[in-house]
Amino acid sequence: MHPFDEAVALAPQGEGRWLGRTHPGYANMVGPFGGITAAQALNAVMQHPQRLGEPVALTVNYCAALADGPFTATARAARTNRSTQHWVVELEQQGQAVVTATVVTALRREGWQHDEHRMPEVPAAADLPPTKRPAGVAWLSRYEMRFIDGAPPAHWDGSDHHDSTSRLWLRDAPARPLDHASLAALADVFFPRIWRRRATLVPIGTVSMTVYFHADAERLAATGAGWLLGQAKAQGFRGGFFDQTAQLWNERGDLLATTHQVVYYKAD
Amino acid sequence: MHPFDEAVALAPQGEGRWLGRTHPGYANMVGPFGGITAAQALNAVMQHPQRLGEPVALTVNYCAALADGPFTATARAARTNRSTQHWVVELEQQGQAVVTATVVTALRREGWQHDEHRMPEVPAAADLPPTKRPAGVAWLSRYEMRFIDGAPPAHWDGSDHHDSTSRLWLRDAPARPLDHASLAALADVFFPRIWRRRATLVPIGTVSMTVYFHADAERLAATGAGWLLGQAKAQGFRGGFFDQTAQLWNERGDLLATTHQVVYYKAD
Repeated sequence: MHPFDEAVALAPQGEGRWLGRTHPGYANMVGPFGGITAAQALNAVMQHPQRLGEPVALTVNYCAALADGPFTATARAARTNRSTQHWVVELEQQGQAVVTATVVTALRREGWQHDEHRMPEVPAAADLPPTKRPAGVAWLSRYEMRFIDGAPPAHWDGSDHHDSTSRLWLRDAPARPLDHASLAALADVFFPRIWRRRATLVPIGTVSMTVYFHADAERLAATGAGWLLGQAKAQGFRGGFFDQTAQLWNERGDLLATTHQVVYYKAD
Repeated sequence: MHPFDEAVALAPQGEGRWLGRTHPGYANMVGPFGGITAAQALNAVMQHPQRLGEPVALTVNYCAALADGPFTATARAARTNRSTQHWVVELEQQGQAVVTATVVTALRREGWQHDEHRMPEVPAAADLPPTKRPAGVAWLSRYEMRFIDGAPPAHWDGSDHHDSTSRLWLRDAPARPLDHASLAALADVFFPRIWRRRATLVPIGTVSMTVYFHADAERLAATGAGWLLGQAKAQGFRGGFFDQTAQLWNERGDLLATTHQVVYYKAD
């Protein structure tokens, strides 16, 4: 069984209620990698017998670092329309919310389509060396990454890098066919933009992340276990919070997801 | 009383529960302008006696068009930390959810700050003619707009405009000092990108909108009733949903908010 599938597995506990568990393979410095938490929250909706259609939007609010161990996930369909459905999700530990989330699922329709934000022209993943993973952070071993530019600074010397943009090829390690849950997790792989901008390891924590899914299950199946190109860039840093906006394309250049997050930081 | 203040007014109905009402001055073609609904949802948190700090993130999911008339708003603090607080909000009509929302509020902290996404160089609002408002849509009269580029197509001739970007100066009409609720509403003023791209009035409806607030109350007070520069751009159109990303700066060039939304569309 792939570690990702182990990590997002939820045991039914009755109507709209599941038992999940943090996975040591996705541990971060404090608590789990936020991407796996997002995938677990989405999975509560994916497994719900009343789900209509596929995910279009996911917002995950990180209320507190999850403690290692079990959590309860609840998913409630607040509204079901003819072709869209609105979900409210909560993860709890010790009776306290650790995550709140909302999900929109929908029946997609054919019609005019276009990727206005085109994939940048970059070297192929096969032509780039693997990025060395720092030791000691488990979740980094769950992804292969090949940076084109905007890699983590080689020297944490406090210099201003002026532009926080990173572009990299990324995929699950070991390789795994893409689905909406793993795509949600991949949306959080980008390291914090403040580290890139200032070449300083300041304390950070994602507060809220939103993912818009442009790919249906068919397009994800066509992408399979291939590389995704990710691009992330900060917009504003102020008052102890910065935001970043990112895009994920498959090797064919299809825009699969766009994502945004706001992150707490402490930097003087 | 300013129509905006009339529209977002909520009458307390006990702990975390309010009665609101749609406002004819913010009516859209079907139901109210989504921006005013976002402001009403945020206001349930702003008025809550247990609120900690100021808004950092707001996600509003539009479950159904609101009917003209009253609605109930509930706001619940799912988690309160030392410096951040996580809210779950719901608006209901006739016992059915019409909006779900989440809000993160926080105590901001001083420190290093920077706007990486700089305001584009554009002519001043004073040097541009007012954009004529089409008749028959009430909420458009609640905003002054002066387009720099990407105005609604002059001819709905189905031509492809290739780039969906719009840049415009905008503010409340009549002028009103900015606060977080009105900034949330201003984040939804951009007309649908699909109309710009294809010069065709196809059916649309915002499904989910997220706003990240970069400005605290002090910066909003300094902005006052001045113009904001808004810039919006689509990223992907596929399967009946497109997304757009947008930024709002004050005249001084401070990035006040960044925002994203995903919109249902029907176009063959």
